[in-house]
Amino acid sequence: MINITLPDGSVKEFESGVNGLDIAKSISNRLAKDVLSVTVNGEIWDLKRPIESDASIKLNTWDDRDGKEAFWHSSAHLMAEAIETVYPDTKFGIGPTIENGFYYDVDLPEGKTITEKDLEKIEKKMVELARQKNDIVRIDVSKTDALKRFEEIQDPYKLELISNLEDGTITLYNQGAFTDLCRGPHLPNTSYIKAIKLLSVAGAYWRGDEKNKMLTRVYGITFPKAKMLTEYLHQLEEAKKRDHRKIGKEMELFTFSQKVGQGLPLWLPKGAQLREALENFLKRVQKRFEYDQVITPHIGDVNLYKTSGHFQKYGKDSFQPISTPQEGEEYLLKPMNCPHHCELYRFKPRSYKDLPVRMAEFGTVYRYEQSGELHGLTRVRSFTQDDAHIFCRPDQLKEEFLKVIDIIFIIFKALDFKDYTAQISLRDPSNTEKYIGADENWEKAESAIIEACEEKGLNTVTELGEAAFYGPKLDFMVKDALGRSWQLGTIQVDYNLPERFDLTYIGADDKHHRPVMIHRAPFGSMERFCAVLIEHTAGKFPLWLTPEQVVILPISEKYNDYAKKVSNYLNICDIRSIVDDRNEKIGRKIRDNELKRIPYLLIVGEQEAENNTVSVRRQGEGDQGSKTMEEFASFISAEVRSQLGSIYE
Amino acid sequence: MINITLPDGSVKEFESGVNGLDIAKSISNRLAKDVLSVTVNGEIWDLKRPIESDASIKLNTWDDRDGKEAFWHSSAHLMAEAIETVYPDTKFGIGPTIENGFYYDVDLPEGKTITEKDLEKIEKKMVELARQKNDIVRIDVSKTDALKRFEEIQDPYKLELISNLEDGTITLYNQGAFTDLCRGPHLPNTSYIKAIKLLSVAGAYWRGDEKNKMLTRVYGITFPKAKMLTEYLHQLEEAKKRDHRKIGKEMELFTFSQKVGQGLPLWLPKGAQLREALENFLKRVQKRFEYDQVITPHIGDVNLYKTSGHFQKYGKDSFQPISTPQEGEEYLLKPMNCPHHCELYRFKPRSYKDLPVRMAEFGTVYRYEQSGELHGLTRVRSFTQDDAHIFCRPDQLKEEFLKVIDIIFIIFKALDFKDYTAQISLRDPSNTEKYIGADENWEKAESAIIEACEEKGLNTVTELGEAAFYGPKLDFMVKDALGRSWQLGTIQVDYNLPERFDLTYIGADDKHHRPVMIHRAPFGSMERFCAVLIEHTAGKFPLWLTPEQVVILPISEKYNDYAKKVSNYLNICDIRSIVDDRNEKIGRKIRDNELKRIPYLLIVGEQEAENNTVSVRRQGEGDQGSKTMEEFASFISAEVRSQLGSIYE
Repeated sequence: MINITLPDGSVKEFESGVNGLDIAKSISNRLAKDVLSVTVNGEIWDLKRPIESDASIKLNTWDDRDGKEAFWHSSAHLMAEAIETVYPDTKFGIGPTIENGFYYDVDLPEGKTITEKDLEKIEKKMVELARQKNDIVRIDVSKTDALKRFEEIQDPYKLELISNLEDGTITLYNQGAFTDLCRGPHLPNTSYIKAIKLLSVAGAYWRGDEKNKMLTRVYGITFPKAKMLTEYLHQLEEAKKRDHRKIGKEMELFTFSQKVGQGLPLWLPKGAQLREALENFLKRVQKRFEYDQVITPHIGDVNLYKTSGHFQKYGKDSFQPISTPQEGEEYLLKPMNCPHHCELYRFKPRSYKDLPVRMAEFGTVYRYEQSGELHGLTRVRSFTQDDAHIFCRPDQLKEEFLKVIDIIFIIFKALDFKDYTAQISLRDPSNTEKYIGADENWEKAESAIIEACEEKGLNTVTELGEAAFYGPKLDFMVKDALGRSWQLGTIQVDYNLPERFDLTYIGADDKHHRPVMIHRAPFGSMERFCAVLIEHTAGKFPLWLTPEQVVILPISEKYNDYAKKVSNYLNICDIRSIVDDRNEKIGRKIRDNELKRIPYLLIVGEQEAENNTVSVRRQGEGDQGSKTMEEFASFISAEVRSQLGSIYE
Repeated sequence: MINITLPDGSVKEFESGVNGLDIAKSISNRLAKDVLSVTVNGEIWDLKRPIESDASIKLNTWDDRDGKEAFWHSSAHLMAEAIETVYPDTKFGIGPTIENGFYYDVDLPEGKTITEKDLEKIEKKMVELARQKNDIVRIDVSKTDALKRFEEIQDPYKLELISNLEDGTITLYNQGAFTDLCRGPHLPNTSYIKAIKLLSVAGAYWRGDEKNKMLTRVYGITFPKAKMLTEYLHQLEEAKKRDHRKIGKEMELFTFSQKVGQGLPLWLPKGAQLREALENFLKRVQKRFEYDQVITPHIGDVNLYKTSGHFQKYGKDSFQPISTPQEGEEYLLKPMNCPHHCELYRFKPRSYKDLPVRMAEFGTVYRYEQSGELHGLTRVRSFTQDDAHIFCRPDQLKEEFLKVIDIIFIIFKALDFKDYTAQISLRDPSNTEKYIGADENWEKAESAIIEACEEKGLNTVTELGEAAFYGPKLDFMVKDALGRSWQLGTIQVDYNLPERFDLTYIGADDKHHRPVMIHRAPFGSMERFCAVLIEHTAGKFPLWLTPEQVVILPISEKYNDYAKKVSNYLNICDIRSIVDDRNEKIGRKIRDNELKRIPYLLIVGEQEAENNTVSVRRQGEGDQGSKTMEEFASFISAEVRSQLGSIYE
């Protein structure tokens, strides 16, 4: 008999040789149906692999990444088997899982190709093979045997892969007529795979090296239920419609210019307005929370980043140093704002009474990304962090965490993000020597974070060993309108930079003490946050934020002057409005402007001009009746205030 | 007889050999007393040098730079003579005039030094020599004779200078026992110099080369009237008190860090607040004038600046290109914002109906300056321009100029600059081929500027040949509180970049046309403007702008909570306030805060806390009585509005 410890700490006794599926069955039939892989002492195993001594285990379902991995990995093998059936003599490169689904790189026989049109054929074959409920069997072989096996079928790619492996036991997996070199784990059999969709075909060099042969990469995704596939495809369609690159262009929010440089966004007037509204909002919130706004340059002496350690970390892989024509100085585009803020902290002596010092800056930082990695506003080469650094005493950590969480709540409310969780990253308690800072401080900081989250009633996940070497952190994961998760908002404790910059404060004891530093960025970066916001709202931003809040539509040119008068009045009231004075029919103007996602349409004609009124339409909701200019201005201001909550009261 | 043409175009006949002083006498005795040098056919001459053929002349007095130059140049010789008398065997380097006064680099005999204490002794000798009314006489000699003369007195510096001159006539100037190598011109005699002040002593390498000997540099200034010296010294004292570097430190507005890099300002919280208030003000004004705010990166591909021509112009002498670890791209720190804005103009096709497009950005640009040239915020390596580019049709130029002048007027009013003139820089009409752009466009642009200035009733100076090669311009010169002139505000027409970037718009004729571009920056740069503003106001900024508008002084700790409540209320009303909750006597608190240049001090104690009131003191003006919180808030808001004028109504 062996002892199996479950994640909740309970221990169950089983006969040696028991497997994950057996254990799941012993808990519930439901679980036995849902389980996809089992984690045994931290290693992920096939469900049917026998467990022969005491172990801690975790049963992974579709809700666990490790469950999905096994599912999609087996699906990749299934696709390979189907391709081999449809295109005999195909040779196989690698077939990994990706964030959503899997792919396989294949080398088709001379004269054969796979195009989008062929995908259905392969899909059908996959469905057929899945229904055969073929067992997926793990086979342990020696390296010599493995080589022999793939020599027989003359697959040069697998042979190359095996040659690069160390001597020892190698695992193969077989289902039906297909055997693959694979570390696993896999599903018990192919029948788990109920819904299949092959998504696209692309070319890919073997091992990503353009000197090698171009293989065919086939992308697919599979699910345990047909309904999940339907939902996924619908979401994919929705995501395409909401792609921030598409909407950003349509709404004229931002653009890129090859001439200015790849990955360097240029914010068009409406995008700049959007960004400014976000920044002004956060500035106002931060002012309320007693932050000090500062401004520092976008470059710094290389030695500054040697002191901070960023040069050692980023120097080689990022934008290279800027030399000067004389005096031999070298500057770096800022990889981070913190060293500049440390220098500002050092501007004058600080006393324990002065702390916390909260220094905020919309600070732009630079990272070199390969052009192939760039993606709209989510992966760029220069981005502006809504950065702040809080320099505080260790005993102030918890209060500061509470306050930062309050700021994040205010932002989520104003932007209508309702579904979020927080991840607490702590140090690995069995490996404390790899972290800097005194044990006592770590304990204080970790319990400060945990208590702050509890007091705020946050839904949290705690990850041991995920802390940075310089301190624990708290990250917010937000679900957007399509249910996709984004990491927004991070709070990070840092014991390292105060050491490196020798930051101190004079304590009540008249001695020098080391402050703790908190890095925090509720938006993360303005670029990425705007991208998420565009996709979350499909460009229909909340009224307070949207670049154009009101469009005034004169019913004929005769009323253009009155329209202009209304617009001027609203602009003075800080309501952003434009006039559509095109020589078009009013119906056409209404349609066009509804498409432009402008929340309020004001129609003005003879009656309105005479009575100083406007006819109000809410986008997508139609006529809202007539109001005087003043009534409309206070009506819309009230709506803005209610969206922003108490911060603007 | 010869014909002498005066600056007003009138012609007078004189006998050949007449000199500048004679001509001045012929006009008025006053002028004969005031004249210091004469410009003859564009060359500046001694007043006593005979004019032997027809000439155009201008008589230079103290009000002309060319008059001052002669005065200070002769003063430098007088100082040299005095030093030679006090320290026999001194050798002399060079003794030029500078913006205010002059210096002489001298090599004192072995064992001798000049310190600040010795200056009075030299001054006294100068006064004595000046009273001797020694004639300052021009002597023409050959190079050989000149060398011989300085060999006799063994002055290695003069010998080196003469050796480097071309063969031909060399001029020496003699007064009393002192003769110097000099191009002139000089005053007729030493008695013109009525008031003398030697200011400081410094070390300076011969010819600025640290491999050479260190000489002693003595700085001085002189005036034709004692009262002028008194005024100057007073102003110098005032300027020292107002030095923006000193006030910037006292008020904690900005700082520099050797570690971040020289010439890269770090804006402390109050300075960032000051800058932001200025930026928000201008943004609001610009919005009213229908500008579009944009945001572009601080770097750009080197090729962008090759297209614009900036790389060719700045590349070698500025920050060097930034290379990337892969893909061979090269980026430049922005030397100018215009290329980025040209790319934004090209983002979509533009029609004649879309123009003007007015693109504004607080855009940071970078220029490498040698560390010796750096000076506070006025000479830095990165600065933020309040830049905008107006892309318009040629027929819109005048209207756009009028509007930019309006913006500049609004700014000058809000900042209380009352004394300004405008300089119109036109092309050299006798040399039109060195300018790009059609003659017709130049004529249109130049008359647009001239007419706009006339319509606005501006006090202008017109300079022919001062236009850039790519277009005419208008610069504003502003006098500060000490009467010093600063160039603030520039409007520049540009025909060049629209060509280089191939910018077009579709005209009413459906054909492509070239827009005209206007560069304009009313502040110039935020850094320099803030420096001027600090020195103009001595840190007592207008209420609307000052970083801390109100300080609340609880009379004892018991009222700290009430003080905090008042402060919160004011902050919500967008009035910037702080609380001085130090445990100090109220008298001390008032004194300390008056020194901090905070316009309003609110004293709160029992009575105020009970009645929800505040006791108001205006900085430097004392008690203003009691007000409720609400009354005070609307009182201060009204003062802000009246300072800003109609833009905030």
